[in-house]
Amino acid sequence: MKATVITIGDELLIGQIVNTNAAWIGEELTRLGISVTRMVTVSDDSHEIQQAVERAVQESRVVVTTGGLGPTHDDITSQAVALVFDVELELDESIMSIIRDRFESRGFSLPESNTSQAMIPAGFESIVNLAGTAPALLKSYDHVEGQGLLAVLPGVPHEMKKFMRDNVLPRFTQMEGAQSIQQKTLLTVGIGESHLHELLEGVESSLNEGLSLAYLPSLASLRLRLTSVSDDEDAGRSRLEELEKWIRDRADKWIYGEGDDSLEGVLGRMLRDRGMSLAIAESCTGGGIANRITNVPGASEYFVGGVITYSNEVKKDLLGVLAETLDKFGSVSRQTASEMAQGVRNRFGADIGMSVTGILGPGGGSKEKPVGTVWLGISSQKSTSAVKLRLGKDRIRNKERASTAALNLIRTTILK
Amino acid sequence: MKATVITIGDELLIGQIVNTNAAWIGEELTRLGISVTRMVTVSDDSHEIQQAVERAVQESRVVVTTGGLGPTHDDITSQAVALVFDVELELDESIMSIIRDRFESRGFSLPESNTSQAMIPAGFESIVNLAGTAPALLKSYDHVEGQGLLAVLPGVPHEMKKFMRDNVLPRFTQMEGAQSIQQKTLLTVGIGESHLHELLEGVESSLNEGLSLAYLPSLASLRLRLTSVSDDEDAGRSRLEELEKWIRDRADKWIYGEGDDSLEGVLGRMLRDRGMSLAIAESCTGGGIANRITNVPGASEYFVGGVITYSNEVKKDLLGVLAETLDKFGSVSRQTASEMAQGVRNRFGADIGMSVTGILGPGGGSKEKPVGTVWLGISSQKSTSAVKLRLGKDRIRNKERASTAALNLIRTTILK
Repeated sequence: MKATVITIGDELLIGQIVNTNAAWIGEELTRLGISVTRMVTVSDDSHEIQQAVERAVQESRVVVTTGGLGPTHDDITSQAVALVFDVELELDESIMSIIRDRFESRGFSLPESNTSQAMIPAGFESIVNLAGTAPALLKSYDHVEGQGLLAVLPGVPHEMKKFMRDNVLPRFTQMEGAQSIQQKTLLTVGIGESHLHELLEGVESSLNEGLSLAYLPSLASLRLRLTSVSDDEDAGRSRLEELEKWIRDRADKWIYGEGDDSLEGVLGRMLRDRGMSLAIAESCTGGGIANRITNVPGASEYFVGGVITYSNEVKKDLLGVLAETLDKFGSVSRQTASEMAQGVRNRFGADIGMSVTGILGPGGGSKEKPVGTVWLGISSQKSTSAVKLRLGKDRIRNKERASTAALNLIRTTILK
Repeated sequence: MKATVITIGDELLIGQIVNTNAAWIGEELTRLGISVTRMVTVSDDSHEIQQAVERAVQESRVVVTTGGLGPTHDDITSQAVALVFDVELELDESIMSIIRDRFESRGFSLPESNTSQAMIPAGFESIVNLAGTAPALLKSYDHVEGQGLLAVLPGVPHEMKKFMRDNVLPRFTQMEGAQSIQQKTLLTVGIGESHLHELLEGVESSLNEGLSLAYLPSLASLRLRLTSVSDDEDAGRSRLEELEKWIRDRADKWIYGEGDDSLEGVLGRMLRDRGMSLAIAESCTGGGIANRITNVPGASEYFVGGVITYSNEVKKDLLGVLAETLDKFGSVSRQTASEMAQGVRNRFGADIGMSVTGILGPGGGSKEKPVGTVWLGISSQKSTSAVKLRLGKDRIRNKERASTAALNLIRTTILK
């Protein structure tokens, strides 16, 4: 099944906002095995919208529009799609009464501009917006390849997503010719794409028909997306589970989570479950690691705190790094990283102490220690050690990569 | 002048990446007074690209495409645009020799897949890619409203932007009927949109023809975009300067920078120019402020370091906050914030000490101190004080807003 996504709004055309709606819808439709062949962005102009929708319902069995609905848009999209199907706008009494009730329950009378939202094209199905005011509109249509479905949604991202999840995506999966799609995403860290390919060598031959595996790399981690397309939901699911087991048998130590998990969130759960506490000494990452850890709600249950040591004086004074160590090995060294990790653990009375010291650029490199040289130190009751990273030349990317490596080092240390 | 933006790539249609190229191009064209009427995303398919470009050159005098160029795409876009103008691909010797030299200078021989990048449609102008391999292609064409210009650019964002800035945008401004556009963006912080509107009341009547002022709010700051459209460049520029002076006379204390300045970058310059040093004690923001400060290259010249105090013990031990203060007023209070700021300044021997303590949510609020209650403390040689913020309920947004407010408090303290 082919799909067209139409996003409506001048704010998209002038680049005031980035079109995250289109990407999100593209991802969700792709998950369902629906092939998005075109995305179009047009202005809040009735004629432009009408043209785009006319072409889309000719080309695709699935059409999603977002935007151009609601009180500030004069419901221009409703008018445009009514013209496409050559129908009039009619007052939808159930939508009207809900909008009226909502205003009256807050002690307001209904503004004139909001009544237009209850005017929907004749023959369209309307769905009440629980998160906002503009309803969603659905319309079946005939297409040369079978029945088609047009979904007209508001542009506010959380309203659009709610309609898609609750109402629209389930309808697409019920369409004639739609297949059952199961997906699972495994999140890996600390392993490169080529190394993972090697570990999973032979996966292609173990992939039965309808199974597929995609490698989705990002800056410091790699997602594995497993997909099973099948006419039979149960069979599809059990094949997906087999594939997951096959992968985990070979690469489980690199897999830190699934789906929407974040590395800092997974690490937080591990620390909380074990009743362990963590303290961090950051030099080059300058708070980047602590910032990610404290993005997780409830981080105070396991994160005690940290020190940002942008000078050697602070490394000595607050963390007890020896002047001798700094003189002999320098601040970017195995020895300094180890002493920082041990120092912050002692100072904060934490179970685990983590440290980072390095040269992230653009300046500060030397022949022996070029930009991108980073040492991570880790200290627990059992032992203290350090590992070296060789990163690139871009400061911001290096901060991100060093932070991810540090979080993963804590994770693997806990698992040991 | 109307424009169409065509972005090419399966990764956009499946939602693997968000289409930031389209937004960036939309913003740049809008700055030049060019009206983007449609954006289209199509797959890496020659026929789809050809169709989209054919329609675009009929509709618009300005057409920009990105993507579908380069070794992994088989230069499908070059082939497609050649078909649009019914011309053959020809070897461009100058591009070929540059590609060959580049490979040979690294000791490699030229891979076969890279030679195709020197094949360009006959009658097109090619521009060497200094940041990558795929060249940019330009083609003038006849349009009912005057001469049109098609720009075919690679999809890698930094390559595309370099071509746009250096080669393409200057050409658009030279087109017949194009007007001279001058723009300036003033960056404000610490003032809400409605308050700024009040301060600038009457600006509309002082706006001569061709001048406009746009308010662009973001999470914790507000950009003011001044635009002057004129047939005469000098006259346009001087009117823009007048408008800027008018605004600065009324709102200068809220303006921290211009254009692409960041608050942390501006603050860094201020500290460096004055030879001042800074230390930070973060509780609720958990490293978020230090992270922003250390994103700026050379931050070690003025940023000494900081402490992340996620527990009261650490506030006492490392910063010298009195147990009595914590008992009597609590950790989220004017008194604790002040003692933290003074403590971190003393401890790190810095000229300025900054502190943040608060409840960012989702948990931890009470009736007296609801989620969103934050105290910022600041200490210099002259004085120590604290101010209260009332933020919202979203943890991540609160971290961002508190960080911006803290950076701005340091800025205004230095200026006093």
